[in-house]
Amino acid sequence: MTSATTPDTVAVVGLGAMGRALAARLLDTGHGVTAWNRTPGRDADLGVRASATVAEAVAASPLVVACLLRHSSVHETLDPVAGRLRGKALVNLTTTTPNEARELAGWAAGHGIDYLDGAILAVPDMIGSPGAQVYYSGSRAVFDRFRTVLDAWATSTFDGSDAGRASLIDLAMLSGMYQMFAGFLHGAAMVGSEGMSATDFAARATPFISAMTDGFAGFAQVVDGGDYTVAGQQSLDFSDLSDIVRASEEQGVNSATLAVVQALVSRQIATGHGSEGFARLYESFRARAVR
Amino acid sequence: MTSATTPDTVAVVGLGAMGRALAARLLDTGHGVTAWNRTPGRDADLGVRASATVAEAVAASPLVVACLLRHSSVHETLDPVAGRLRGKALVNLTTTTPNEARELAGWAAGHGIDYLDGAILAVPDMIGSPGAQVYYSGSRAVFDRFRTVLDAWATSTFDGSDAGRASLIDLAMLSGMYQMFAGFLHGAAMVGSEGMSATDFAARATPFISAMTDGFAGFAQVVDGGDYTVAGQQSLDFSDLSDIVRASEEQGVNSATLAVVQALVSRQIATGHGSEGFARLYESFRARAVR
Ligand SMILES: NC(=O)c1ccc[n+]([C@@H]2O[C@H](COP(=O)([O-])OP(=O)(O)OC[C@H]3O[C@@H](n4cnc5c(N)ncnc54)[C@H](OP(=O)(O)O)[C@@H]3O)[C@@H](O)[C@H]2O)c1
Ligand SMILES: NC(=O)c1ccc[n+]([C@@H]2O[C@H](COP(=O)([O-])OP(=O)(O)OC[C@H]3O[C@@H](n4cnc5c(N)ncnc54)[C@H](OP(=O)(O)O)[C@@H]3O)[C@@H](O)[C@H]2O)c1
Repeated sequence: MTSATTPDTVAVVGLGAMGRALAARLLDTGHGVTAWNRTPGRDADLGVRASATVAEAVAASPLVVACLLRHSSVHETLDPVAGRLRGKALVNLTTTTPNEARELAGWAAGHGIDYLDGAILAVPDMIGSPGAQVYYSGSRAVFDRFRTVLDAWATSTFDGSDAGRASLIDLAMLSGMYQMFAGFLHGAAMVGSEGMSATDFAARATPFISAMTDGFAGFAQVVDGGDYTVAGQQSLDFSDLSDIVRASEEQGVNSATLAVVQALVSRQIATGHGSEGFARLYESFRARAVR
Repeated sequence: MTSATTPDTVAVVGLGAMGRALAARLLDTGHGVTAWNRTPGRDADLGVRASATVAEAVAASPLVVACLLRHSSVHETLDPVAGRLRGKALVNLTTTTPNEARELAGWAAGHGIDYLDGAILAVPDMIGSPGAQVYYSGSRAVFDRFRTVLDAWATSTFDGSDAGRASLIDLAMLSGMYQMFAGFLHGAAMVGSEGMSATDFAARATPFISAMTDGFAGFAQVVDGGDYTVAGQQSLDFSDLSDIVRASEEQGVNSATLAVVQALVSRQIATGHGSEGFARLYESFRARAVR
């Protein structure tokens, strides 16, 4: 067991918009910060101890936080100092795919570095505020030992020892978000074709779509139960989206994003699942071959 | 000007799940109801005056409410009695596309019938409860005259004299909803590929996706302003969804619905709009040619 520690100094590698927000919050909560950024001067007005080299920055702390652009930036920055990270904890908040996080965890293990991957569900302004969330996975020891630091930024959740899991959950949520955003813009274009403003549409769509998220729990219950025929669901036959696709086309509005959803529904109906609930589409996603 | 009336009797044509809920609510609020349904006996236990023929049902009231399966059902049911509807108000709550509603409005005008089209945003259980919404368009006179009846069912909104407009707004909202549902199920399949339950995913996705609907207003402001380059937006370059598509594929999860959104983003980036905000996708939908 490792016990919780508040390190005197945290090393922050990367002072982009997010790295700066993370460093600023650490300073606000009484931590010392040494920081390095590829382009010098990004620490101006921040109050961190700026280091000329990565090696110098990481030397000062048992905890190194990386917040760089992407997976490759992490290797470019940390490969040259891997030896100096031995025995330290590395919390990587750079956005990566699950497999990239797993690759970094393997690299870290090979160098005796204790690796925790984090996925930030917040914009920089939200860091330190109640709405901010960060999912972590990888080393439970790092999560427990430096919990005070992590909790300064956001509500911290530990998602297991697979370093890719935090990223996977994050990307899954973002997939839902981006598809919803696309759906909103598609709807706005549909009503826009008759001169309704997007603002008027948003005033209706925001409470409606928000309320409809309550349906997720019902879909989830059906998915987890594994029986898509349970009573009380709206059937796929009833949810047939072809009317909406047709109306979109008749208004001269590109229906491409909705049409793909409709294609999955049609395929389920064609293969005999029309009387089952909308949650049945889970199987369309799961079976990569069913397109 | 027509003044508001509460008719002694409302004629309800169609006693499916929704028609029954509409009729029951009218009885609860002190209206008389004569009703007809293709298959007899659907009025059992309801307490309406059941009519053997459509003609008999509609004779009793200045207001005829139709709630049938689809556009064609309305013609099949009402064409034979069009002459008897002359001078009456017809409120059609059957789901139709905008063009189908416009066609029915033209048919009604040809027969001297005052036509109001309605789009119900509620399930039958919600009729008469605060969350229920119905959008109406077509005859303002019918909307005003029978407002007491309409308001018994739901919050009533009048969307203008184009009979297709209520349906258009309804279908636009449903497009957003179904794309969000597909996004949720895609995300659930992504995390499901590593054994996370859909219920655990819903517990995170519901508050997150619901909170993200607050972003609609910002997108709408950009769309209505017509300048996708305004500062403070997350850029398309930054929102590049290819990492999520790749992660989905690497987990063996069909990425088809998200991939189409990503294709629109890529096209916008390729045509020089990468530094603009996500709201730029509005133009992808608007320009049918840009796929
Ligand atoms: N901003 C958000 O809303 C948000 C939300 C969630 C997650 N994130 C994630 O947080 C990470 C950082 O985002 P950000 O908003 O801070 O981005 P940013 O403002 O663009 O900053 C990028 C940072 O990465 C550095 N960098 C890029 N390539 C590098 C390389 N090859 N070697 C060394 N340093 C390199 C940049 O250094 P230079 O100054 O020298 O260019 C800069 O410090 C990203 O992975 C992002 O996905 C951001
Ligand atoms: N249920 C909802 O959650 C909901 C929500 C919003 C809008 N709506 C709309 O409301 C309308 C009715 O939905 P519902 O839920 O009541 O459907 P339903 O339970 O399936 O009932 C369909 C009704 O239409 C009648 N019908 C079908 N074809 C007909 C024809 N050719 N001639 C005469 N009658 C015909 C049926 O009569 P029989 O009994 O003889 O088959 C029945 O009364 C639909 O347009 C639906 O989209 C429903």
